[in-house]
Amino acid sequence: MRSVIDILDLSIEEINSLMDIAIDIDTHPSKYAKSCEGKKMATLFFEPSTRTRLSHEAAMLELGGTVLGLTGTESSSAIKGESVADTVKTVSCYADIIAIRHSFEGAALVASKNASIPVINAGDGGHNHPTQTLADILTIYREKGTLSGLTIGICGDLKYGRTVHSLVNGMTRYEGNRFICISPEELTIPEYTEHIFKEAGTEFEITDNLEEALPKLDILYMTRIQKERIEKPELFESLKGKYSLTVDNLAHAKPDMIVMHPLPRVNEISVKVDDDPRACYFKQCMNGKLIRMSLILKLFDEMIINTQKDFSPKGATYFGGYCHNNKCITHIEQELESQFYIDNDGVNRCIYCDYEISKEAK
Amino acid sequence: MRSVIDILDLSIEEINSLMDIAIDIDTHPSKYAKSCEGKKMATLFFEPSTRTRLSHEAAMLELGGTVLGLTGTESSSAIKGESVADTVKTVSCYADIIAIRHSFEGAALVASKNASIPVINAGDGGHNHPTQTLADILTIYREKGTLSGLTIGICGDLKYGRTVHSLVNGMTRYEGNRFICISPEELTIPEYTEHIFKEAGTEFEITDNLEEALPKLDILYMTRIQKERIEKPELFESLKGKYSLTVDNLAHAKPDMIVMHPLPRVNEISVKVDDDPRACYFKQCMNGKLIRMSLILKLFDEMIINTQKDFSPKGATYFGGYCHNNKCITHIEQELESQFYIDNDGVNRCIYCDYEISKEAK
Amino acid sequence: MRSVIDILDLSIEEINSLMDIAIDIDTHPSKYAKSCEGKKMATLFFEPSTRTRLSHEAAMLELGGTVLGLTGTESSSAIKGESVADTVKTVSCYADIIAIRHSFEGAALVASKNASIPVINAGDGGHNHPTQTLADILTIYREKGTLSGLTIGICGDLKYGRTVHSLVNGMTRYEGNRFICISPEELTIPEYTEHIFKEAGTEFEITDNLEEALPKLDILYMTRIQKERIEKPELFESLKGKYSLTVDNLAHAKPDMIVMHPLPRVNEISVKVDDDPRACYFKQCMNGKLIRMSLILKLFDEMIINTQKDFSPKGATYFGGYCHNNKCITHIEQELESQFYIDNDGVNRCIYCDYEISKEAK
Repeated sequence: MRSVIDILDLSIEEINSLMDIAIDIDTHPSKYAKSCEGKKMATLFFEPSTRTRLSHEAAMLELGGTVLGLTGTESSSAIKGESVADTVKTVSCYADIIAIRHSFEGAALVASKNASIPVINAGDGGHNHPTQTLADILTIYREKGTLSGLTIGICGDLKYGRTVHSLVNGMTRYEGNRFICISPEELTIPEYTEHIFKEAGTEFEITDNLEEALPKLDILYMTRIQKERIEKPELFESLKGKYSLTVDNLAHAKPDMIVMHPLPRVNEISVKVDDDPRACYFKQCMNGKLIRMSLILKLFDEMIINTQKDFSPKGATYFGGYCHNNKCITHIEQELESQFYIDNDGVNRCIYCDYEISKEAK
Repeated sequence: MRSVIDILDLSIEEINSLMDIAIDIDTHPSKYAKSCEGKKMATLFFEPSTRTRLSHEAAMLELGGTVLGLTGTESSSAIKGESVADTVKTVSCYADIIAIRHSFEGAALVASKNASIPVINAGDGGHNHPTQTLADILTIYREKGTLSGLTIGICGDLKYGRTVHSLVNGMTRYEGNRFICISPEELTIPEYTEHIFKEAGTEFEITDNLEEALPKLDILYMTRIQKERIEKPELFESLKGKYSLTVDNLAHAKPDMIVMHPLPRVNEISVKVDDDPRACYFKQCMNGKLIRMSLILKLFDEMIINTQKDFSPKGATYFGGYCHNNKCITHIEQELESQFYIDNDGVNRCIYCDYEISKEAK
Repeated sequence: MRSVIDILDLSIEEINSLMDIAIDIDTHPSKYAKSCEGKKMATLFFEPSTRTRLSHEAAMLELGGTVLGLTGTESSSAIKGESVADTVKTVSCYADIIAIRHSFEGAALVASKNASIPVINAGDGGHNHPTQTLADILTIYREKGTLSGLTIGICGDLKYGRTVHSLVNGMTRYEGNRFICISPEELTIPEYTEHIFKEAGTEFEITDNLEEALPKLDILYMTRIQKERIEKPELFESLKGKYSLTVDNLAHAKPDMIVMHPLPRVNEISVKVDDDPRACYFKQCMNGKLIRMSLILKLFDEMIINTQKDFSPKGATYFGGYCHNNKCITHIEQELESQFYIDNDGVNRCIYCDYEISKEAK
């Protein structure tokens, strides 16, 4: 059974093929209107995310399938009473594919290991959110005509923002891209993102100045800065304006730069920017739906032709020990034994949340 | 894009045509069973209203369409994080039509201005609820065979009750109707409803005595009196019985009078009245579904023939100023500028909630 | 209109026929894929039960029907504002069949008396849950090839566990079954269950020792012991291990014994047991969906051929008096008069919750 838990579960060729089908769906929707007739998607949203849930549901419905939902409050009670493994074993009796969202890291991997149907990770805590990254990559491809040789500005909360980490993971796999990382010092990219850049040989720059960076960019990827991430309230107040995209500062950007945002926004992009043709964040929504349709089709297709690909190509693993990430699913799932792998740099990591355990072991 | 935000957005001719189609749907349901195949309705219920939500969903399903839902808790978190405008811009990527309910007045108008798909107002605070009024009008038409020359008793909370205000707006447009307004003095009709009666040349009477009024009525429209609306608890206790319809007092009504109620009821109509053939409140439910089916068809139809009708025919508007209605959407929506119009009496009003601003400006 | 409120509403022949169709659905799903096209199920879950709700929804969708939902929070507000009778009268306008779950006993019976469409009881408090019992019986039939002559161990909370009471009701109707009731003394079977055994002439044994009982069993039906049911915390701790099924103690069971559980489990069955071929609790899930499909078909079928069978064959009833069960629906439903029947032993019982009123009357 094939599942998609991490953007790295998909090869470049697979991503290209997903994009081709997504574009074909957009062009010839009626061709696909009955592709999933008689099939059901279960949306297991153990933490609420209306936008992501509706996108998956719309994707399934446009393929002619139906949807079984699990939402908000209900799921929080589910979370207490039952393990992820038991939930997905049960849901495998009711549905044909699962989209899961969970606040604990690694929950989607646990789901994919226990389900007898394909699983799409719709966000596991701060860890992975591969379909958002696919939507981002498709948007870049459709708007810029290429995925290579681009100068990409990522702006906002680069320390905790899951979306930018995944985007970096995705876009450093293509040739000649260059990143400008724009954030307050307190929220700059973490060490491991820097490591990804170096490993991939991707040029990158760190700055706290959006206005200076703006004219150089082909893509500006804005994210939200959450008040609670900044220790000093007066610093937050000063940043609010600094990292807010307005019609005025957009005047200094290239005429073909595109503005992206994973949404929801608060005030980091002025509503007035929406009318600018460079504003692409609602196109991202549409592309999100299209790429999810494409992914659903792919997963059903692989099920039929019975491809037995390992969904988590992390090499040899070993049991034992303890993961020190307190958001890791291993801490709440019943009888789930910790399991680890050694990455290319020799670091021991939890297979569920990819947390470095060697650090803690010291 | 055509939307329905206010009952006044529809002409008498349009209402007549909606009713004809609703009746045809009731007679020949199979003719319409696939009319909306491949289309999706998003029910954006930012405040819970199970009955109204299920009615819209049932309508869409019976037309062969599908439904994407947003409910209760989930939406309350949505409300904090994202503007109505952003929500509907996103949902326009996922669905083909929106039914929206919101606790702030004017929210549906904001939605219709930002969506690229038709919007049905399923209730915006105490402001508008046009599909309830359509259901009421259809019920009167089917049960009485006419919409003119009727004596209509409205009973209960006439001050705050949104449903009766809309009904007055709807039924004063037809010839020769007469209203008897039955309520405790504290909850009598507001000045602007009186104004509507006078403007339309509709005869009306104000009384606090249900028993005296009952024999004169062709229609009795009951509404609930909420305890918290009455200052003195002892007054509420005395009213409870006074405005309760029982098998006993129904004996004094005309044999062909009809009893209506927007539901849910608490105790203002005894359960035993349900078996009386004059009880029409569950027929109202059924008519509510039918008229919503008719409306959905109309909105999709106008979309196809591309009618570009102004959805809010309030004449010239101007920006600036501040709406003093603290339930107005302008107070919570990001970057939404206040906007006003001048009504036929020269009163300045907010285009979102129709609140008179001149009063406050003094 | 036929409804299923209690497992005893169905004759042995009807249960056999439901099982035959369920097995046929499993074998030839495509034959049934459009059986309920154009039909809608309303899932009225006034108390959350994700598993049961999804099972009903999956059943309806696999028959080609659609679903209208009512979930968690929303319903709790519904519960305050409106009677069960009014809710189902309204929902009868929107849907073709109702599955209802409610925390008050007798709520499903009230629903069936007021709906104009069939009602399936999906659990009314601690009272009835007939579709769970049907799933259990189907699982036993499919796994053991018979419903007679079996030694059935029921283990865990036998005092409050609704599932085991229903199972006893169901399985004592078949010949030659024998029960071993395994529980701590505090949670042993109540008097009325003992009475059912005696009435049916079913052999039974009471013990607190799972290990001793295990080798004798054809079926082990495990249930969860809730911490709050045991007064002394130290006793709960000692029981936890005692009533936990592990790979080790399963070694002493017959090779063809089957392990059942209504789920969700907490720790009374080790996750490692899941891989044992005797573990049948996820098969129960699948069978639950299949038997619900079968039941939906039967109820629609009987509606068409217009069978007017009394849904609650409790004999003569009388009005008046008061039910002393504080979880009985008569205490919250508007204008619902208490009603009683006299059972075979001369005990006066509430028709809604089957509570013995004679005891209290003393």
